[in-house]
Amino acid sequence: MARIQTDKDKSRKEVILRAAAHLFHKKGYKSASMRDLASQVGVEAASLYNHIRSKTELLHDICFNTANLYWEHLHEIEKSKASPIEKIEKLIRFHIRQIIEHYEEVYVTDREWKHLEEPYLTNYRNQRRDYRKSLAAIIQEGIDTGYVQFIDASTAVLIILHAITGVESWHRSYQKIDATELENNMVTIFINGLKK
Amino acid sequence: MARIQTDKDKSRKEVILRAAAHLFHKKGYKSASMRDLASQVGVEAASLYNHIRSKTELLHDICFNTANLYWEHLHEIEKSKASPIEKIEKLIRFHIRQIIEHYEEVYVTDREWKHLEEPYLTNYRNQRRDYRKSLAAIIQEGIDTGYVQFIDASTAVLIILHAITGVESWHRSYQKIDATELENNMVTIFINGLKK
Repeated sequence: MARIQTDKDKSRKEVILRAAAHLFHKKGYKSASMRDLASQVGVEAASLYNHIRSKTELLHDICFNTANLYWEHLHEIEKSKASPIEKIEKLIRFHIRQIIEHYEEVYVTDREWKHLEEPYLTNYRNQRRDYRKSLAAIIQEGIDTGYVQFIDASTAVLIILHAITGVESWHRSYQKIDATELENNMVTIFINGLKK
Repeated sequence: MARIQTDKDKSRKEVILRAAAHLFHKKGYKSASMRDLASQVGVEAASLYNHIRSKTELLHDICFNTANLYWEHLHEIEKSKASPIEKIEKLIRFHIRQIIEHYEEVYVTDREWKHLEEPYLTNYRNQRRDYRKSLAAIIQEGIDTGYVQFIDASTAVLIILHAITGVESWHRSYQKIDATELENNMVTIFINGLKK
């Protein structure tokens, strides 16, 4: 029986998660089977169960790994001494880089979290809401201190987060500007758009 | 057998298309059946076939009605004497209003067009690409004439169109600002963001 191939720096669990993100992105969580995943990893389905218990565990791990990364970054930003505009710029750059560099994981988290099982589903939904509220609070801080023009902070969050999902089209397009140029263009429009 | 209920100003075909947009939005085009649609309209499935031939015809009509509306508006804007910034603002406002007022039709067009059958699929894909190119050309005109700051025009289109899909979240949220405020907030951020 084939063994799961790993790099020096990756555990077998990480290899499986990477393959699961690729598969869930391609086929959708609902349509993907453990058999598909095994063939993706290059082993028999039985081998997978030495490392993970179920398809839902994979979705759970992808979603919460992504969420934890975003929260960790947000907490760093929140406690930094940067101005509200600098904080917003750092957050926008982080979001763009994540969807550029970890496209499939971010895509699956963003589109498939609704298939999580309880109690994780409710937990994830609450975290998502709280995360957006924290972003809105930073924008509101910018408005209150005169850095950001007078807008509805939640609407700004909604616009920015949705615009960043546009990087999906960038991933799919044949003729594309490079990633840094993409990031800088997006930041230019948003920071200029928000600044007073 | 129940007859299809209509208003004075709506044909039976329009009533069916409205119901189909609602159903395809709720269940997805693939999962929705003609039986579901009949029960949505309040008639038996057989009655539907007096007005439409197939599920794919419904998707075709929804997508191309929406596309035609957008093209018509774009052509009006293109031949108007407004400045590039004014043109961009009018286009952004039009897109936002469409997704606010005809949410289900726009959503289905945007998400489900990939299920169109040939030759309509290729035709739709080409129109979509050309429409985005036309939007980029207006932004590029703004850059060339010094109204818009130096950015990649296609990236700006990608950002704006994706941001506008954020109105989906607005539709789903319980506590929401009113539609005009939403539109004005989005326009403020984008026009300020693009202006030189």
